Amino acid sequence: MTRTIVASATKEIVIGFDQPFCVIGERINPTGRKKLAAEMVAGNFETVIKDALEQAAAGATMLDVNAGVTAVDPNATEPALLVQTLEIVQGLVDLPLSIDSSVTAAIEAALKVAKGRPLVNSVTGEEEKLEAILPLVKKYNVPVVAISNDETGISMDPNVRFAVAKKIVERCADHGIPAHDVVVDPLVMPIGALGDAGRQVFALLRRLREELKVNTTCGLSNISFGLPHRHGINASFIPMVIGAGMTSAIMNPCRPQEMEAVRGANVLNGTDEHCTTWIKTYKDYKPGEHAAPAPVAVTSPADGAANNGGRRRGGREARMARG
Amino acid sequence: MTRTIVASATKEIVIGFDQPFCVIGERINPTGRKKLAAEMVAGNFETVIKDALEQAAAGATMLDVNAGVTAVDPNATEPALLVQTLEIVQGLVDLPLSIDSSVTAAIEAALKVAKGRPLVNSVTGEEEKLEAILPLVKKYNVPVVAISNDETGISMDPNVRFAVAKKIVERCADHGIPAHDVVVDPLVMPIGALGDAGRQVFALLRRLREELKVNTTCGLSNISFGLPHRHGINASFIPMVIGAGMTSAIMNPCRPQEMEAVRGANVLNGTDEHCTTWIKTYKDYKPGEHAAPAPVAVTSPADGAANNGGRRRGGREARMARG
Repeated sequence: MTRTIVASATKEIVIGFDQPFCVIGERINPTGRKKLAAEMVAGNFETVIKDALEQAAAGATMLDVNAGVTAVDPNATEPALLVQTLEIVQGLVDLPLSIDSSVTAAIEAALKVAKGRPLVNSVTGEEEKLEAILPLVKKYNVPVVAISNDETGISMDPNVRFAVAKKIVERCADHGIPAHDVVVDPLVMPIGALGDAGRQVFALLRRLREELKVNTTCGLSNISFGLPHRHGINASFIPMVIGAGMTSAIMNPCRPQEMEAVRGANVLNGTDEHCTTWIKTYKDYKPGEHAAPAPVAVTSPADGAANNGGRRRGGREARMARG
Repeated sequence: MTRTIVASATKEIVIGFDQPFCVIGERINPTGRKKLAAEMVAGNFETVIKDALEQAAAGATMLDVNAGVTAVDPNATEPALLVQTLEIVQGLVDLPLSIDSSVTAAIEAALKVAKGRPLVNSVTGEEEKLEAILPLVKKYNVPVVAISNDETGISMDPNVRFAVAKKIVERCADHGIPAHDVVVDPLVMPIGALGDAGRQVFALLRRLREELKVNTTCGLSNISFGLPHRHGINASFIPMVIGAGMTSAIMNPCRPQEMEAVRGANVLNGTDEHCTTWIKTYKDYKPGEHAAPAPVAVTSPADGAANNGGRRRGGREARMARG
């Protein structure tokens, strides 16, 4: 059975087919959040702290940490800022972290200070990336997210995306990294633009599980890009990808409708034994309400609305737009 | 491609893997609804009319019609009452109907007056049932729901349930009824009692689709029996069964959360072309709202609360309890 182990200083989590779906909180990411980027550049981590606590309270399994505040010479600034952000977050919550950067030096700097066993986010099938990231993954003995695009971009042909994933897994093996430490992102396209996007990813997930036997992840909200009532599409997508074998996603855990879908799918997938989490969360549920996370003490009132209401505007979506 | 055609006098619907999920409205059923049963016995069809119009307005694809008002000598009363109910409903809405009875004479009486091409609900693997129902299904050239239990009851072993379904499909063939006119119900167990119920049905649905190539249905809300916030479990279950290949369900279309899950899963399954239905339904959606059906003119205020708030208490659940 495929088991990807991630850990904070004090808490170990297993990502696997027989485990509750791993929710990787996406909020600590300045991509497309100008206000947050400006704060982080100014050394103000109030929003980072708030996002970390809120996501933990909402039930995130892990937290993604991204400090990509600028597209201008990120090599100069990102390593130090990612280290600073990571240290603040790991001092605050006991969840395993995902080190999210496109800057190799930032990933290495963060790996040096990260406690436990973080996830590296990410490598692609690009030669330059493989050669830069895989030695670090091996050296620090950590798992890695493998995004199934390469120098040619993101293929619209799911067979090509599978082949890229397979190549990355093979290259990992060459570096002594086992398949159970590779978490493949098959790349989710917006269903509003590509009507086949859902069926493509369901078929890919089955092949990744059955043929490559790897854990999987995705930038979940990409699927609903451009459609009205995105949370409804996301909340239908979650049970479908879980049913197809996906084992984690980078998503916003502060969204009650999406988290309800995760918890429901865990029940139905047999990974919430005796429905314990479901019953605990919803035993006093009244129709029309959502089981919201408990309010968090550390807040920045002026910033509250923007952060609570915002959808994920950057990260994978931004990457996809460039791809 | 498997296509089950059902029709009212004026409207034809195809049930199939490449079609929007077929929502069979379950409300017109007095099983476990004492007040409705008493009304129907007294010749009062106000609630039946209200339930027919509300389900149609809420987006049901078909309506199930059941007139099982009594367990005491149903043979004497049910044929005439089912005919009366069916005629009222088919005079009111243009949706295809499902003739739901455990009384063979009632099914035949209803088949004689039904317009279009109704679905017969149901036959089981019991010899007596097969011999009673299949000749009618052949004579009237209609499709039939095949429930995968037999004289021994409902097996907890999904392989046995598959074998029963296969036997029914074969017996149908002996009677000249093609597999595309058999809609198999693999029987959904409550997940709160049987932790494997979800995975069992997903695996069964894939086999039914790939090996028997039949359409499928289920009494959907059985899955959440006994759990808090049942609509949340149902709404996660719907995308998972659709992803696994289920093509219809007997369910309550007046539940916005469940219907949102159906519409979302149709988008993701590629059966809501250009997301047309989704965009039409949710283009003005505001967070916290559900896209409720338009209010229906014919209402019985005294009965409103009970009918709007009620879960399905009879039908398959009642059958399951006896099984």
